[in-house]
Amino acid sequence: MTATTHQPGALDGVRVLDFTQLLQGPYATQMLGDLGADVIKVERAGTGDLYRSMTFFNEWIAGRESPCFLAWNRNKRSIALDLKRSEGRAVVERMAAQCDVVVENFRPGVMARLGFGYEDCARLNPRIIYCSATGWGRDGPYAERPGQDLLVQGLTGAAFTSGRADAGAVPLGTALCDQLGALHIVQGVLAALYHRERTGRGQEVQVSLLASALAFQAQDFFTIHNLHRSFERPRSGIGHPGNGAPFGIYRTADGWLSIAMNPWDRIVTALGDPSLARYDDPQARFDRRDEVFEAIQKILLARTTDEWLEIMLGLDLWVARAQTQDAVHRDPQVMHENLFTSVAHPVAGEIKMTNVPVRLSATPGSIRRPPPLLGEHGRELLAGFGYDEAEIDGLIAGGVVSIATPPEK
Amino acid sequence: MTATTHQPGALDGVRVLDFTQLLQGPYATQMLGDLGADVIKVERAGTGDLYRSMTFFNEWIAGRESPCFLAWNRNKRSIALDLKRSEGRAVVERMAAQCDVVVENFRPGVMARLGFGYEDCARLNPRIIYCSATGWGRDGPYAERPGQDLLVQGLTGAAFTSGRADAGAVPLGTALCDQLGALHIVQGVLAALYHRERTGRGQEVQVSLLASALAFQAQDFFTIHNLHRSFERPRSGIGHPGNGAPFGIYRTADGWLSIAMNPWDRIVTALGDPSLARYDDPQARFDRRDEVFEAIQKILLARTTDEWLEIMLGLDLWVARAQTQDAVHRDPQVMHENLFTSVAHPVAGEIKMTNVPVRLSATPGSIRRPPPLLGEHGRELLAGFGYDEAEIDGLIAGGVVSIATPPEK
Repeated sequence: MTATTHQPGALDGVRVLDFTQLLQGPYATQMLGDLGADVIKVERAGTGDLYRSMTFFNEWIAGRESPCFLAWNRNKRSIALDLKRSEGRAVVERMAAQCDVVVENFRPGVMARLGFGYEDCARLNPRIIYCSATGWGRDGPYAERPGQDLLVQGLTGAAFTSGRADAGAVPLGTALCDQLGALHIVQGVLAALYHRERTGRGQEVQVSLLASALAFQAQDFFTIHNLHRSFERPRSGIGHPGNGAPFGIYRTADGWLSIAMNPWDRIVTALGDPSLARYDDPQARFDRRDEVFEAIQKILLARTTDEWLEIMLGLDLWVARAQTQDAVHRDPQVMHENLFTSVAHPVAGEIKMTNVPVRLSATPGSIRRPPPLLGEHGRELLAGFGYDEAEIDGLIAGGVVSIATPPEK
Repeated sequence: MTATTHQPGALDGVRVLDFTQLLQGPYATQMLGDLGADVIKVERAGTGDLYRSMTFFNEWIAGRESPCFLAWNRNKRSIALDLKRSEGRAVVERMAAQCDVVVENFRPGVMARLGFGYEDCARLNPRIIYCSATGWGRDGPYAERPGQDLLVQGLTGAAFTSGRADAGAVPLGTALCDQLGALHIVQGVLAALYHRERTGRGQEVQVSLLASALAFQAQDFFTIHNLHRSFERPRSGIGHPGNGAPFGIYRTADGWLSIAMNPWDRIVTALGDPSLARYDDPQARFDRRDEVFEAIQKILLARTTDEWLEIMLGLDLWVARAQTQDAVHRDPQVMHENLFTSVAHPVAGEIKMTNVPVRLSATPGSIRRPPPLLGEHGRELLAGFGYDEAEIDGLIAGGVVSIATPPEK
């Protein structure tokens, strides 16, 4: 499947000036783009978003493109500018005066030093909505320290909630805090857009990885602070440190099976071992959860995942197949829901990506553009903001604007 | 600190009719409430939200309140209704006609059978924004199956990305998919509100745990599908299956230290062991990451976390303290940023909770109400929707509406 034909989006007509790089900010502006916004990605002339030069396994798509960059930058146009030059800054000033939203994720103070802090942009454009995303917050003892996903997972305790009792730190193998921060950026920007539509007033939005990570663990912190009791991870693999058995993911004869909260008597029926009725007490299933987990695990090895699903779904138990990421695109529900799609990229070819997850009936999200090459849209963006051809040629010739062109077919 | 004084919120005047329970939906409507919306929680007369009767460790706050429920239901008023009775359904009809947003997370079809599906509500109120949150999507092979956080973590591969190579399934010890779904509900509702403000048109929003979990793993799926290579977890504890050393969280003499991406030469300087220069090659640090992790780990045990922070932050390395959840509220940056607050609850007393994470300068979020008792606001809500005193007394006497009252002081 190729990119969806353009239908009206909820954010049609909203222009976003995007100074972000790496993961948190680009994911946020990609979601705004999915919702229909026109996202203008401002990159550093020559090198661009740092994520263009980072990858996994030290490998590249088509020899030069980064999966990390490509995963978070669809639905954007790129302009590559030298912001150390006054002509470069003049381009930003002109764009900021005509955009609705600015998003940036530099360390605190960097944008103000460039002349594009909130106050600067609000002077150019009083209706501007300006979102700053930081690691630790704007000020305070850590404000000048590096703020990054793994560091925030560690500091907020998130890295000590998964896995087994003796596992030490278990960082999540995904950029958890970056992505929560991105979802909070979108929330703040959308709330501010709604408010502006009703009052005419713009405002500043602040998001941090730290606040996002704490909000994510709200239920755990609430329990610790109000039940005055700490979570201890189980030895067995039970899926949450505060839960008893059977809550977990088990091996079967040929794969894996997840078992969530369920009435114990029906679990005993499904497993076919009446002796398990001795655990018919929630307190026992919490206190002796590792023992119960192992008893269940032993029985589950006797049949395949499909066989257990048939038995257990027949009893309306909360169970599902578990599988590694490699198998997910072949899952029948994933295929039915059309959760992967693809788009043509001038260098990487047809690239497969996750589809827009939030579905709006009147204004469906859409994928209208592949991730941009560095500075690919410099000419059209400058023209759109009123530069004439001679001015554009001058900016390019002078190295203020750099433009990558797609390779010849 | 007690609840913040009420300041105008971005969603002031927006009324949300909330049929959700457990985690995903209540967290979403709590965020809408934090932004200023008036959230009306419709609960089952007698029992209420299922989460009121679930807890951790089989323990309760003040003997009867659930930390799980309290963590996700501030800024809401509760009305407890018997929806099997026509008088109960008439109350919902009147409320739906005057609300802006409906959010529900029943299994597909349940609301329509109650007479409150999207089409029903849109007939009562053509401007309605109606959000359905499901586990697996509205239809397809799994639509009738139980959809729950752990099950979605397992099915989408998320449970196989953290931890060590031999760890088997490692579910995240947090309701990851529920919370991502909640953030997507808020995104969809806010985008639809913005669109309605500009066009006058309501619409339907659909969110699923499945689509949310896949979007969360977008970068991983992108890599698998376009680099055609699978992720393998390291043996050592490296923090992401696609990253090389030193990316991880290490033990020190007295605690833990996170080390993110860093220039290798400066890591070698900080660790004070020139022999580590032999790993000065990103490919080696990926291929031999477990060996590098162990070499670093050995050195870090010689000093305290504070000592390493002083050395490493002095070299502008990306490092931070790591700590368990119990210690987080005492962290100086967490205290500076005021990320925990408290509110008075009629039964549980002063309860400590995470503060609003997204900061809007002109319309700051606020915590205006503690989580409600079951049906606590039945009288005032019915009066607000035009029922007179005699009608309200009749609904209560007939058991259509149930009302909990706070205990005597």
